[in-house]
Amino acid sequence: MSLEKVYKYIYVHTDDFVKDLIRLVKQPSVSAKGEGTETCAKLVEKMMQEIGLATKIFKGEKGNTVVYGEKLSKKSNKTLLFYDHYDVQPPEPLEKWTHEPFSGKILRGRIYGRGASDNKGNFVSRLKAVQALLEAAGNLPVNVKFFVDGEEEIGSPNLEPIIKKYKKYFSADAAIWEFGGTDRRGRPNLYLGLKGVLSVDIKASGASKDVHSANAPLIPNPAWRLIWGLNLLKDTKEKVLIKDFYKNVRLLSTEEIECLKHIPLEEEETKKELKLKKFLHNKTGLEALQALLYQPTCTINGFISGYTGEGSKTVLPHEATVKLDFRLVPDQTSIEIYQKLVRHLKRHGFGDLKIVKHGSTEPTRTPIDNPFVKLVTKTAERVYKKRAVIYPISAGSGPMHLFRNFLGYPIVSAGCSHPEANTHAPNENLKIDSFITGTKFIATLINHFAQ
Amino acid sequence: MSLEKVYKYIYVHTDDFVKDLIRLVKQPSVSAKGEGTETCAKLVEKMMQEIGLATKIFKGEKGNTVVYGEKLSKKSNKTLLFYDHYDVQPPEPLEKWTHEPFSGKILRGRIYGRGASDNKGNFVSRLKAVQALLEAAGNLPVNVKFFVDGEEEIGSPNLEPIIKKYKKYFSADAAIWEFGGTDRRGRPNLYLGLKGVLSVDIKASGASKDVHSANAPLIPNPAWRLIWGLNLLKDTKEKVLIKDFYKNVRLLSTEEIECLKHIPLEEEETKKELKLKKFLHNKTGLEALQALLYQPTCTINGFISGYTGEGSKTVLPHEATVKLDFRLVPDQTSIEIYQKLVRHLKRHGFGDLKIVKHGSTEPTRTPIDNPFVKLVTKTAERVYKKRAVIYPISAGSGPMHLFRNFLGYPIVSAGCSHPEANTHAPNENLKIDSFITGTKFIATLINHFAQ
Repeated sequence: MSLEKVYKYIYVHTDDFVKDLIRLVKQPSVSAKGEGTETCAKLVEKMMQEIGLATKIFKGEKGNTVVYGEKLSKKSNKTLLFYDHYDVQPPEPLEKWTHEPFSGKILRGRIYGRGASDNKGNFVSRLKAVQALLEAAGNLPVNVKFFVDGEEEIGSPNLEPIIKKYKKYFSADAAIWEFGGTDRRGRPNLYLGLKGVLSVDIKASGASKDVHSANAPLIPNPAWRLIWGLNLLKDTKEKVLIKDFYKNVRLLSTEEIECLKHIPLEEEETKKELKLKKFLHNKTGLEALQALLYQPTCTINGFISGYTGEGSKTVLPHEATVKLDFRLVPDQTSIEIYQKLVRHLKRHGFGDLKIVKHGSTEPTRTPIDNPFVKLVTKTAERVYKKRAVIYPISAGSGPMHLFRNFLGYPIVSAGCSHPEANTHAPNENLKIDSFITGTKFIATLINHFAQ
Repeated sequence: MSLEKVYKYIYVHTDDFVKDLIRLVKQPSVSAKGEGTETCAKLVEKMMQEIGLATKIFKGEKGNTVVYGEKLSKKSNKTLLFYDHYDVQPPEPLEKWTHEPFSGKILRGRIYGRGASDNKGNFVSRLKAVQALLEAAGNLPVNVKFFVDGEEEIGSPNLEPIIKKYKKYFSADAAIWEFGGTDRRGRPNLYLGLKGVLSVDIKASGASKDVHSANAPLIPNPAWRLIWGLNLLKDTKEKVLIKDFYKNVRLLSTEEIECLKHIPLEEEETKKELKLKKFLHNKTGLEALQALLYQPTCTINGFISGYTGEGSKTVLPHEATVKLDFRLVPDQTSIEIYQKLVRHLKRHGFGDLKIVKHGSTEPTRTPIDNPFVKLVTKTAERVYKKRAVIYPISAGSGPMHLFRNFLGYPIVSAGCSHPEANTHAPNENLKIDSFITGTKFIATLINHFAQ
């Protein structure tokens, strides 16, 4: 296939592609509030149909619709799947936006709006790459599938049963994950895995109601109880004290360490933004990067007990709750860590603390030496004309394990975003230039995937 | 003086006394919300003037009015002061009241309403005792003074400067404190002291804003920091770990231990009400009582950090605050404990935690062998015809130290309340019978005080 014709189609139709992205950005789809998600799912399906994909809707017992689209190739049995999501983060705080968050306003070569980059921009760029291939060549070099999640921003809590029930639809030879882009030096960043996450509440209970704090010598205080329990989980050096917590953590390979050396860590920018003099325990450079990507964590997300208003109140609270998340790395599993947490507290005499499990995802990654990783890297370097930066794993989490571990194919996250995209923040945007180069990259990748 | 005439006056005027109490109960005076307090102060002044007291209003730079009243005796130079307060606790939860909280409704021999017992009932009973003495005998056997606080329920935060500036008005030979009554066996309960209290916030800070919890390996988490700091303050055996915290705690005297043996602790009732199988560390009987009255404490009143809503949120909070109170016993002081707390955290490397001091009161007591204690005890036993129960100290707190330590006279708390008065709770009430017997007790006490 001549990629020249495809590239030409992309450049000629840039305005149409941008219009289609704006059309999708204008449709709110905030999964955290259930705002506009089903209408957005219908629009996603329509946009797939408009370029000639066969679509299907998957819906579990609860949760938002998954929109699925596919186009079979006449030339190849190989299949490339794209994982995207149509839901977006809440746009709040609204007062920090220069323009209305769902306006899709174009300003100085950028499309502004919640989801412009994460993930509507990436989804549309992939869709338009397929359109360009179909229109410019009349056929696809390989089969393509789109899996468009509706709950990624809230942790895809309802995805597992859908994947398991309809797994034959989602079979593929490889997949491209939802995010990615270029860094400040214009280098394409590729991500080969995600940390897992286990979220729990731990609750302590005392009397049946709050009492006057004068009774403290006799009445148990659940806030103290929870503090003593938490103190058993992590020490001041950030070491997680749960027995065997680190047991299944895989050592870094020589290749992984080599990759880390090429990954930029914007230390000074981050410290300045957060008004911090230094990172935790003075970590810097390669050590900081390695911690960020490979260190499993135990993090307090929130803690509440008793009176928390102005001034003082002589009350002894009757309950206390902490919210924790554990970030997990290969080969830890959420079940293993949950069980170790339960056992650890029990063993230390804190079996009275009630542990409530929220969502979880598993750590996962595709090895650096996988041929698909090499293909994506080569393609990215050719299109972006820069050396690719490979993240063997990302500090974030997501449902990648369901595809990687359960469906079994290699996955790379590579997208069309850029460093000033303000993902998850006010004034989210996508550079039209990044959007179009990203489209060209995906079209090239589909073409190379056939070879 | 013939007490017979005084008692007769009290019985004849019972209905008028009750009406006057209801008049005061009907006037809301919630210091926590600033509701009706100044109107109530005026009514208190008017009620004093109606029985012939000379009044004076004291007002600090901030805070509610203190109403002062006095009546000099023609026969004696001795002075007895009554400390009362016209402010009341908020009536909430309103839905748990059978009648409107400021109705002063009479039902089955009880006056219902917020403040009926604490402290309007006690104040009016004392005022009416003075009225009975004046009306029945034409003169008082000793000088009497009334100090009526307007902020007792919020910890009297503005009292100290008033006491110090106008101390000559508040000089006396002894004082009766605001609370007290009979127990389930009809025995008068007398209280000779109060614990002190020191309230602080301890705050930990991290980055300038919340960040995604994926950044946990690099960004300090103030919630963890605060938990580790708190863990240095108290161990699981309830021992406060602050260096020298217990250093100034006075040992119990043989007399105090003897007193404790006569104090009823309603263990089973309290456990049942609070749905507890046992008290902290299985304390029971004399050990429990001794802990309640003599153990200094470090209590978490509240704790807040990060996300505390439903479900999970992968956030790393940028601040965490705990509210603590320390209950202090003789001879601890709030300044000493505050300084020890600051030093302790600093010494253990937690000098970054910010400590904000709220209100404080000092522990204080009048010795059991003080002649005034003996006089009050003898009088109470004569009027109530039961052995008095002497609490060498109470588990509660209040501004008693300003009178006892600064003005230097003996103080006993003895009042007209009863075990079902629901003080600080819905359906607060005062038995008319208790109110009138209490009035008789105070009239008798004033009379005996002259001797």
